[in-house]
Amino acid sequence: MTDAITIAPRTGTAFHLKQWQSLTVVDPEGGQVSDLLAYNANDVREVISNGRTFDYEETTQLTTGNKLWSNRSQVMLEIVADEVGIHDFLLTPCSEATFKHFYPDKPVHRGCFGNLAEALEPYGIEPDDIPCAFNVFMNVPVDGRSGRIEVLPPTSKAGESVTFRAEMDLVIGLTACSAYASNGGSFKPIAYRVD
Amino acid sequence: MTDAITIAPRTGTAFHLKQWQSLTVVDPEGGQVSDLLAYNANDVREVISNGRTFDYEETTQLTTGNKLWSNRSQVMLEIVADEVGIHDFLLTPCSEATFKHFYPDKPVHRGCFGNLAEALEPYGIEPDDIPCAFNVFMNVPVDGRSGRIEVLPPTSKAGESVTFRAEMDLVIGLTACSAYASNGGSFKPIAYRVD
Repeated sequence: MTDAITIAPRTGTAFHLKQWQSLTVVDPEGGQVSDLLAYNANDVREVISNGRTFDYEETTQLTTGNKLWSNRSQVMLEIVADEVGIHDFLLTPCSEATFKHFYPDKPVHRGCFGNLAEALEPYGIEPDDIPCAFNVFMNVPVDGRSGRIEVLPPTSKAGESVTFRAEMDLVIGLTACSAYASNGGSFKPIAYRVD
Repeated sequence: MTDAITIAPRTGTAFHLKQWQSLTVVDPEGGQVSDLLAYNANDVREVISNGRTFDYEETTQLTTGNKLWSNRSQVMLEIVADEVGIHDFLLTPCSEATFKHFYPDKPVHRGCFGNLAEALEPYGIEPDDIPCAFNVFMNVPVDGRSGRIEVLPPTSKAGESVTFRAEMDLVIGLTACSAYASNGGSFKPIAYRVD
């Protein structure tokens, strides 16, 4: 097992993940969210898709055994271990626009969107190519009757993790979330390992 | 009120919709689905986004008064009238790949995805730029507890409609759905009017 790398609060990073490598995302202090993006390393126009994933997995609640699919109907990642079991794939990364909308009295931050855009730029990925992220540890219950969405604090406890196996060579974008609601008003680091 | 234009079963079309024009999508026979896409006519890299819409509308069940947002956090369309009230924004357009996956014993069809790709190509929109559609009349209940998704026959009755007002100049893609599950195994036309 490799050493974990820490993503500082309200920042993001990007890196290559080769086919069959595993990526473990750890919540070191508990109650923090990490936005995860995946692109085909050989053609970054192929990208993770919440809609294709909901199509094929037939659920919005993705955990061990579920796969994350691309816009070209190929499997990008499989969740192979999950100590938390509650993640979100409905919502887009927080951004300048979402800060202005949801927190008009608070300082504007570029958010996970801005952090991902900067981290992914060296890979030839433009801001418009950022779709819905798989929001690791994000707790977004949906009322099945009304469709109403809430953003609640994550249920992840300190040290808990989720592990993904790459099914193709990928470029991964990963953040320690910047928004208030998604992490219960605290900004904490995220850690990850590639094995 | 203009005359309605018919989209033949299992086909699609694309057209310009100017700011403040309204688009009415009609289910002429009842029980049919129409996949709707929207792009900024002045820059087709700006596109309808289910995640941004769920962010700002705080619900997955979109009806009269709700807005459909772009990947750049701008309002593209507002639902100004809705006789049905049940639509889907979770799932991606049916495609060759989804036909092979869900209907292995049935003939493969290019689906709404292939129909949209062909109709949008003259506007400089590539297949990889097709995101989750707003699936008019599609009936996809979500179990709030498990996240489990079902695809049920639409509740739309013959002649019922939904009307959208354009909040910017748009390119619209629109289909009469090709999949078995989404329209209860029947392939029917869709009609629309621009006023």
